[in-house]
Amino acid sequence: MEQRQLSPRGSGRPGLPGLLRLLLLLLLAHTPRALVQPGPALWPLPLSVQDFKRQLHLAPKEFSIDHGPNSTAGPSCSLLQEAFRRYHDYIFGPYKQQRRPTKFKTGAQLNQLLVSVVLESECNAFPSVTSDESYSLLVQEPVAVLKANRVWGVLRGKFYTVSLLISSKGTYSFTINESSIVDSPRFPYRGILIDTSRHYLSVKTILKTLDAMAFNKFNVLHWHIVDDQSFPYQSTTFPQLSNKGSYSPSHVYTPNDVHMVIEYARLRGIRIIPEFDSPGHTESWGKGQKNLLTACYSPEQRIQGVGPINPTLNTTYAFLTSIFTEVSKVFPDQFIHLGGDEVNFECWASNPKIQNFMKKKGFGEDYTKLQSFYMLKLMNIIASLNKVPIVWQEVFDNKAQLIPGTVIQVWKDVNYFEELRLITAAGFPVILSAPWYLDWISYGQDWRKYYTVEPLNFSGTEKQKKLILGGEACLWGEYVDATNLTPRLWPRASAVGERLWSRGDIRDLGDAYARLTRHRCRMVKRGIEAEPLFTGYC
Amino acid sequence: MEQRQLSPRGSGRPGLPGLLRLLLLLLLAHTPRALVQPGPALWPLPLSVQDFKRQLHLAPKEFSIDHGPNSTAGPSCSLLQEAFRRYHDYIFGPYKQQRRPTKFKTGAQLNQLLVSVVLESECNAFPSVTSDESYSLLVQEPVAVLKANRVWGVLRGKFYTVSLLISSKGTYSFTINESSIVDSPRFPYRGILIDTSRHYLSVKTILKTLDAMAFNKFNVLHWHIVDDQSFPYQSTTFPQLSNKGSYSPSHVYTPNDVHMVIEYARLRGIRIIPEFDSPGHTESWGKGQKNLLTACYSPEQRIQGVGPINPTLNTTYAFLTSIFTEVSKVFPDQFIHLGGDEVNFECWASNPKIQNFMKKKGFGEDYTKLQSFYMLKLMNIIASLNKVPIVWQEVFDNKAQLIPGTVIQVWKDVNYFEELRLITAAGFPVILSAPWYLDWISYGQDWRKYYTVEPLNFSGTEKQKKLILGGEACLWGEYVDATNLTPRLWPRASAVGERLWSRGDIRDLGDAYARLTRHRCRMVKRGIEAEPLFTGYC
Repeated sequence: MEQRQLSPRGSGRPGLPGLLRLLLLLLLAHTPRALVQPGPALWPLPLSVQDFKRQLHLAPKEFSIDHGPNSTAGPSCSLLQEAFRRYHDYIFGPYKQQRRPTKFKTGAQLNQLLVSVVLESECNAFPSVTSDESYSLLVQEPVAVLKANRVWGVLRGKFYTVSLLISSKGTYSFTINESSIVDSPRFPYRGILIDTSRHYLSVKTILKTLDAMAFNKFNVLHWHIVDDQSFPYQSTTFPQLSNKGSYSPSHVYTPNDVHMVIEYARLRGIRIIPEFDSPGHTESWGKGQKNLLTACYSPEQRIQGVGPINPTLNTTYAFLTSIFTEVSKVFPDQFIHLGGDEVNFECWASNPKIQNFMKKKGFGEDYTKLQSFYMLKLMNIIASLNKVPIVWQEVFDNKAQLIPGTVIQVWKDVNYFEELRLITAAGFPVILSAPWYLDWISYGQDWRKYYTVEPLNFSGTEKQKKLILGGEACLWGEYVDATNLTPRLWPRASAVGERLWSRGDIRDLGDAYARLTRHRCRMVKRGIEAEPLFTGYC
Repeated sequence: MEQRQLSPRGSGRPGLPGLLRLLLLLLLAHTPRALVQPGPALWPLPLSVQDFKRQLHLAPKEFSIDHGPNSTAGPSCSLLQEAFRRYHDYIFGPYKQQRRPTKFKTGAQLNQLLVSVVLESECNAFPSVTSDESYSLLVQEPVAVLKANRVWGVLRGKFYTVSLLISSKGTYSFTINESSIVDSPRFPYRGILIDTSRHYLSVKTILKTLDAMAFNKFNVLHWHIVDDQSFPYQSTTFPQLSNKGSYSPSHVYTPNDVHMVIEYARLRGIRIIPEFDSPGHTESWGKGQKNLLTACYSPEQRIQGVGPINPTLNTTYAFLTSIFTEVSKVFPDQFIHLGGDEVNFECWASNPKIQNFMKKKGFGEDYTKLQSFYMLKLMNIIASLNKVPIVWQEVFDNKAQLIPGTVIQVWKDVNYFEELRLITAAGFPVILSAPWYLDWISYGQDWRKYYTVEPLNFSGTEKQKKLILGGEACLWGEYVDATNLTPRLWPRASAVGERLWSRGDIRDLGDAYARLTRHRCRMVKRGIEAEPLFTGYC
């Protein structure tokens, strides 16, 4: 799985204006390596870091985070106000309760962090795949300045001011080095998949995951919300779906729950992309929606259970239009994941009415054509709702007609570079997950395997490579619930986080180990039970 | 790893008097299978269960656990008093805080559990390898009677009264079936190994592990307390060992901490066996004890780091006598684990003084002889302190002279049945760990692999098989700390728990899956974050 041939890309990603990018590249070319990877355990590593090696002191009671005088986002921007409070807590929180007053060394001091949003703030907007996450941070006595085009850059930048803080000798003294950071992500799509069908995850667990994602600069939660095993999404249009299809009445996500997750995520610059996987993986749908699933037949022509959604009925598409109309309103993100993976063709093939339909349509015995027929109709519904569909790679592999702009998610581990080549050659954007199935656990430091993946290491033009939107670490839920989700996800997913955020040539495993070890301790201190990389202590 | 050839042993284990055993065998021969594996998710399965299919109701406020009139253990037995309170909480705890009064159906009721200890109670004793853990439980209107020879049997038995309770329909009604259980363990040694050197584990984490062990009828915590990486044991004789050898001043176990762990374990019928592994795995010892470790030499005869304990110096044995004198007082258990695994002979071989010593002793180039020389001296120290040594299998493999009764722990996965045959043929008792290295994680339901091991599936006489004291699930700490210990250990270790407690012919994986799924939910409800076996919910 480890990719040895590197294909560094520098900053050739959306989010940073061309001139600034050029400037940075020139800067980086003259920056010794030691300055690029300084003492503080930055994770993921920013595009550029300069450490001026001059220490400033901070006093918790005197230090404040404020809006810059020319910022387009003032105190009315609750997204930033929330973030100010949160990060002040992260920096000084554990020490507030100490009885002893903060000892304060004389010398150079940092009193304030000024936050300036330069363009329209997007304070009340939702993040998207084109959101500008770039920012710059200049720490100099007595005021640090964080600049960003949009609030999203502020959110990404603020974690660094925190990370740079070192509580030197003892717990009552806070210092920060004078320094300059210019940063923007390499890939605009950096996701985590959670699966709330195989096991229900409480809202609390999901919110904690969003916190941990923010600490690692992930910006998409792919919420695989329903599947064969259970249908916890409470639909207002079809309440029977969760009434009958959830594990129990308490294992559901009410509209309020969903709204809370979306807003909590927005405040951290994270998108929520729901997946309603079909036509396979829908056993739980059938419990609350009659005549939706295909009846499977035994060789003796007796009905024997149910299979995928029945793609031959008009009622199916009427239902899909209704449910996806609701879903597209509930979830504000532009993307909706439609699934389309692992369809059981045997059941379709066993059903006489479906055989008939195949004949009528001239599909022969090729059930991929039937799936493509279904997916195209579904994608058209989604397009009419002004949403962009994401589908698993089978939909592309089956040579379905696809709406331009459809995003393909690559998950099969075999030959995934060839798959990336084919999809991008056909002009479709891609999310890569194949090397990052984190539910597949093994002994030892598998984060190294995830870290050394180079997503652009396939043969293709520059234009093709720009179609790689990013990637996703998938934590499928067969063996995962609230008891083990956090230590199984972190810091293994952090390795994916840096791969998707930082420059392609940042791949020194020794340096990554040193930084990630400290980063995981930082997560543990903030209440995220990230497991250890190896022997040692925090 | 799965053992297909079964070798059922019935109840041929210490702990149950011969007549009772005979009676049981007769009883079991006439008990239909359905009665042996009844509805309630018992784990591990008792020797015999009879369900009389008559339901009794319990009222939390009216139900009490009391001492039987002829019990040798009265209210002065704080071990039992503590257990009464604990189990009353387990049964009714979550419901106490409900505002609504407990609805109470009319009909047959259970008002009391009477606990009778028949022989000398051993209330203030420590458990040992010969402790009698057998018990019987008869549930009949209106009083259930739990009988045991010693308090240890009461502790084992009480969990069953709890497990048998089903809160039928809703959360305010408690019922139990009239039933009879006769039970005793198949193996007297059922251990869990934790490793507090690779990662320090807080006392809180250790106590939680003891709770979970009690829920699974484990009776030994093998505390691998020190190793190369750190020396957290705070010695009163040699305070420098942890001052210099622990990760930090807060990563230590004070005498108070150790005492608390031992007492908490005793109250649950669990032994604490400490391991002070030597002569290898001792890097951290060297930091606080000068001239203890061997200086390793480079090919150019320059000193280059340190290796195992230096077995050639008198000062070494003086030190060992002192430290183990202390350890043998601090830890009341009869067993002390001396390690003896994975000794780095290369370092010994590089040292000119050790080469000299080898010549003088006539050991030639055979460094296993040097290790054996060391181990025998150490075992004699232990014997003079009236303790029984446990050693890893290398000590036996190296053909060391062993004190009779020395317990050999088998850990190497290759050909471990042959190893069991050889060790028992030589007359030594054995603890089996080879198939139960739980730190080796993999995708899927590896509990099945642990469950289907049959420890007695080696060629040997009945006398040899009696030398298998039991087994141990080992959770080494390279990748484990408080963030992931509990879900990694449970319920995977529960599979080992039933293998070591229940009859050898209890090995139906489907039935085990059904019971273990419910058992893990019970653990979760009691605050143990045991991970899921597969999809589903609690």
